[in-house]
Amino acid sequence: MALPLALTMGDPAGIGGELSIRAWAALRGHGPKFVLLDDPARLPALANAIGVPLKLRIVNGPDASGFDDALPVLPIPLATPARPGHPDGANAAAVIASIDRAARLALSGEIGGMITNPISKATLYGAGFAHPGHTEFLAALCNVPGQEVMMLASPELRVVPVTVHLSLRDALARLTPALILHAARTTHAALKRDFAIASPRLAIAGLNPHAGEQGALGAEDAEMIAPTIATLRAEGIDATGPWPPDTMFTARARPTFDAAICMYHDQALIPLKTLDMDHGVNITIGLPIVRTSPDHGTAFAIAGTGQADPTSLIAAIDMAARMARARTGEAGA
Amino acid sequence: MALPLALTMGDPAGIGGELSIRAWAALRGHGPKFVLLDDPARLPALANAIGVPLKLRIVNGPDASGFDDALPVLPIPLATPARPGHPDGANAAAVIASIDRAARLALSGEIGGMITNPISKATLYGAGFAHPGHTEFLAALCNVPGQEVMMLASPELRVVPVTVHLSLRDALARLTPALILHAARTTHAALKRDFAIASPRLAIAGLNPHAGEQGALGAEDAEMIAPTIATLRAEGIDATGPWPPDTMFTARARPTFDAAICMYHDQALIPLKTLDMDHGVNITIGLPIVRTSPDHGTAFAIAGTGQADPTSLIAAIDMAARMARARTGEAGA
Repeated sequence: MALPLALTMGDPAGIGGELSIRAWAALRGHGPKFVLLDDPARLPALANAIGVPLKLRIVNGPDASGFDDALPVLPIPLATPARPGHPDGANAAAVIASIDRAARLALSGEIGGMITNPISKATLYGAGFAHPGHTEFLAALCNVPGQEVMMLASPELRVVPVTVHLSLRDALARLTPALILHAARTTHAALKRDFAIASPRLAIAGLNPHAGEQGALGAEDAEMIAPTIATLRAEGIDATGPWPPDTMFTARARPTFDAAICMYHDQALIPLKTLDMDHGVNITIGLPIVRTSPDHGTAFAIAGTGQADPTSLIAAIDMAARMARARTGEAGA
Repeated sequence: MALPLALTMGDPAGIGGELSIRAWAALRGHGPKFVLLDDPARLPALANAIGVPLKLRIVNGPDASGFDDALPVLPIPLATPARPGHPDGANAAAVIASIDRAARLALSGEIGGMITNPISKATLYGAGFAHPGHTEFLAALCNVPGQEVMMLASPELRVVPVTVHLSLRDALARLTPALILHAARTTHAALKRDFAIASPRLAIAGLNPHAGEQGALGAEDAEMIAPTIATLRAEGIDATGPWPPDTMFTARARPTFDAAICMYHDQALIPLKTLDMDHGVNITIGLPIVRTSPDHGTAFAIAGTGQADPTSLIAAIDMAARMARARTGEAGA
């Protein structure tokens, strides 16, 4: 039987709590089963505010056996009551403890994987959080700092940006063969281990329009990306490209690869979100554990109103379950 | 009654000839009607090679009255027989004459607009062609050099790249408020005149991920693009943004604008082609005449084999007809 998953609280002033309740209501009866790492004291009022009937079961470990009947909550006490839309640094320690606890349960093999609700970096920084973000914190907890790679996946497409949260100018300046190789190798390994794809096919994007058009529209495609693809192929990785960025995500091209390695944030995220805004899941690959997250933020502006849509969180839970099954060899992705 | 359209031959070694024949076969009986500017001597053998029954009618002006019965051809003689897949500089003068004739017919008001088959710039350069490309040549013929702006349109989306055929690095270096203003104003005017949209809504893309995230991911969005939008709004143009590039093309966002003004080639073309590879039409706006073209090249590798798909050329013909009707007030876009 599959191990349970763990879902972190995220910022308790954001939409994470209500999405967790909605996800439980949607998944009870058929799964996947998860344990929520949150303060149980805040949940009944939140469920009432959004009009979702909720039954809680307090657990002291990753026990999701009663999931169909009640939402299992592993208590992470808040320091001060959460107010939707009003993040409070006093609760930063609880937000971090929720992530830390989930990561340790995953590292020890007690859960199949973790799903993280969105956090507010500004609030955590104000409370002394020393990591650039969620993902870097997890890489540090897993003792693999710098190995993390972001993958975005929807039912139609998987994309991996080589450079992520940089201005376009900085992305151009920092793009190197080493970064491309790391992203491609990590993706190749993850597609085998987490997606049960025996022979992953990687499509490597060009950087420039028309992939540089023989140098007329930029040198990087021929001088940096093409030799990197040759290196990958020499390692036995089925990598092709550099592909013209504008035609590699068409309906005809998408079935020809398992993941696209993209040179900058929007080259990856424009096609993914244009095709499917709601079912995108953020996956951190390159970690020893399974970690997914929904493809949205804390949405403080609508927190507590019941307007938040749980589709992406449910997709993230489903994805973590599929990845966990692939790792244990129970089923393909 | 609507004026006829004119279709240029493009490079006679490319797929233009067979696409023109297929487009006539598809459109006869219901239109739009066009006159082909090509060498009639080469067409029967080409029609035979691709297995499409063809009847020609030689005309000496833009007379498409017999279109339903026979393809009207206004003769532009080739200097040497065209061989599919083997471009020949000896025919460059005919390729240019076809474009020149169509543009003059459009300028004089004898046709409603022109549709251009793809040319081979390398072949034309070798024969002494002094313009960077098709579009610049047309702007010169229309006596509005530098005013041309590229729009790509599909049934779902219209996009206008502010910078076009430049490396990403050069696009960043050359992006200016003046270029953004020119693209936005030209698009606004074209949406009114050619698409019969009374109050066009322009969505202006940011340059950087998350539109710069308050400067954390790049300064251009706040320092260059936002003030430019303010200028446009002060002129009465309904321009909004800068929008985060990855979420502005979603199914929910697309209906909120009539055209997206994009900062670089792939920011515009990735969403357009990802959504709809086959029905994209290239439109030159900023000219006094209507000009469209299919969104593909000469495809020398498959020329003469009958494999070429006329969908985009037919979409370009339909689009030119709709634009011509909008200009005469006959119908909306």
